[in-house]
Amino acid sequence: MTSKFIVGVMGPGEAATPEDNSIAFQLGAAIAKEGWIVLTGGRAFGVMNAAMKGAKENGGTTLGILPGSTAQGSSEYADIKIISGMNSARNLVNILTSHVIVVIGMAAGTASEVSLAIKTDKRVILLKQNKTTSDFFKAIGTYKIKEADTVQEAIAHIKEVLSVNR
Amino acid sequence: MTSKFIVGVMGPGEAATPEDNSIAFQLGAAIAKEGWIVLTGGRAFGVMNAAMKGAKENGGTTLGILPGSTAQGSSEYADIKIISGMNSARNLVNILTSHVIVVIGMAAGTASEVSLAIKTDKRVILLKQNKTTSDFFKAIGTYKIKEADTVQEAIAHIKEVLSVNR
Amino acid sequence: MTSKFIVGVMGPGEAATPEDNSIAFQLGAAIAKEGWIVLTGGRAFGVMNAAMKGAKENGGTTLGILPGSTAQGSSEYADIKIISGMNSARNLVNILTSHVIVVIGMAAGTASEVSLAIKTDKRVILLKQNKTTSDFFKAIGTYKIKEADTVQEAIAHIKEVLSVNR
Amino acid sequence: MTSKFIVGVMGPGEAATPEDNSIAFQLGAAIAKEGWIVLTGGRAFGVMNAAMKGAKENGGTTLGILPGSTAQGSSEYADIKIISGMNSARNLVNILTSHVIVVIGMAAGTASEVSLAIKTDKRVILLKQNKTTSDFFKAIGTYKIKEADTVQEAIAHIKEVLSVNR
Repeated sequence: MTSKFIVGVMGPGEAATPEDNSIAFQLGAAIAKEGWIVLTGGRAFGVMNAAMKGAKENGGTTLGILPGSTAQGSSEYADIKIISGMNSARNLVNILTSHVIVVIGMAAGTASEVSLAIKTDKRVILLKQNKTTSDFFKAIGTYKIKEADTVQEAIAHIKEVLSVNR
Repeated sequence: MTSKFIVGVMGPGEAATPEDNSIAFQLGAAIAKEGWIVLTGGRAFGVMNAAMKGAKENGGTTLGILPGSTAQGSSEYADIKIISGMNSARNLVNILTSHVIVVIGMAAGTASEVSLAIKTDKRVILLKQNKTTSDFFKAIGTYKIKEADTVQEAIAHIKEVLSVNR
Repeated sequence: MTSKFIVGVMGPGEAATPEDNSIAFQLGAAIAKEGWIVLTGGRAFGVMNAAMKGAKENGGTTLGILPGSTAQGSSEYADIKIISGMNSARNLVNILTSHVIVVIGMAAGTASEVSLAIKTDKRVILLKQNKTTSDFFKAIGTYKIKEADTVQEAIAHIKEVLSVNR
Repeated sequence: MTSKFIVGVMGPGEAATPEDNSIAFQLGAAIAKEGWIVLTGGRAFGVMNAAMKGAKENGGTTLGILPGSTAQGSSEYADIKIISGMNSARNLVNILTSHVIVVIGMAAGTASEVSLAIKTDKRVILLKQNKTTSDFFKAIGTYKIKEADTVQEAIAHIKEVLSVNR
């Protein structure tokens, strides 16, 4: 009767690139296959939507933490929609609720989530991030930051976190 | 691929009476049998704990929205633990995320949740509440407030809300 | 170099009656004359607006804690506008920031604030409230609730709280 | 009867360097001399404390937005203490309430504030930041980011923002 392991997938919404979305879909699929829950910001765009779609098409469970006061704009791939009503203050809920964070693509909201993850002592996996992003978060996050070039590497890092948490 | 119907069960934690807990257990069980999700404040006490225990022992799914910054103090009957880190500000999340609210017992936190439910235009079912409580919330909530004397009556009221929401 | 004493004045916005607004104006004036800060929900309506107007026309300082993400809809009588971006979750900020609460009129948002005040162990002065409201909050708040029939009585109650806090 | 201009000074608490604190003190003093309010995270450490001390010793007004549920740990230099009870979710309040942001030193909480400022379309002045930090925030914030090497330059940038906002 233990609660399930939750992987937060953070990344841009409307500003995500097609490559960000493709990686997010693959990561969501891989997380679902491991039997873990995919958590995202819940909106119907970009990395959030793609990661949950990947999970749902592979038998997974998805959790969307929405910024608004209604479900409007939420992804159809979110099984459970948490309606926070707190705008970007919900980013803290995303981070605290996730047992580990994977980051795909970069934008201001995503950067606030990575920063809060470091602040609240979560482990963060930067997936295919550029040198500018990676240098900055390694400078403020030191040992809390891991880097991965592939979805497989990200999954391996998640398993390390999971083994320590057990 | 639509998200599931969520019933928020609100009531005291440590201050709940044995009767509150017994009704909460029965309500949680009845909600689970309908195939709906039970949402509570997630803590290991009182109405929250009892409603989720009733759901879990009857094959249900449970969602706990916690006030703290960690899962400490959370109920073992919460399948998914949302860690808000926002103390009583999380009461808004409880209400916005629930499609309908049932209230068992009364204390200050519970009263804030009923008030926010009225404020955000949710339907609230007062289950076995005394006249003082019932008079007050009917005065400020008018048509949004329904009263029930039994778990069966509460379930019937929930079905009305569900039929309107579809 | 100690911070100033803050009196939270809580009450309806658009739903306030002319009598609510008249009492709120007088209370804001009386608080200002004592040299205390008036805190409200900051919006340009009802008890919030009237209490801050009363304070400003009597040399006081006013603090408005706004629900939205911008200053839109804020009272022109708020000296300092705190923009919370958290909708009704900001009600917790209203309560925690106030050293004592006075309540004029009643509506759902106001009821959530009184409830949170009781929850967080603040003293609450119910000013000219009806028996239904008063019975309910005395039932859940016991010794934390004081009643007043006039602005002068409310000020006397505030002074008692202030003398204990010093 | 217009509300005053508020400059948010963001930077590390316990992790601030002596140089960070010295610059923060000078910036707080300079802001006070312009007649603007200094807003910080309100705690008795680092950049927050130093900026408010600089303001208070130069006749300024200070506003501290605290993460906790009480004033414990707050700076003695905060005239008005907003008690949010929302932990790091209060970072959004810091940013939305400030008309412009100046950043001294860097740590995870500070990075979340700069990110939220970019997200909510505020102007951010990076004061004496290193190339890693500056490259990252210019990449995600583009035209919203200004750099300054001295307090005087930062004040000049604030005046530009103020002239546009009027």
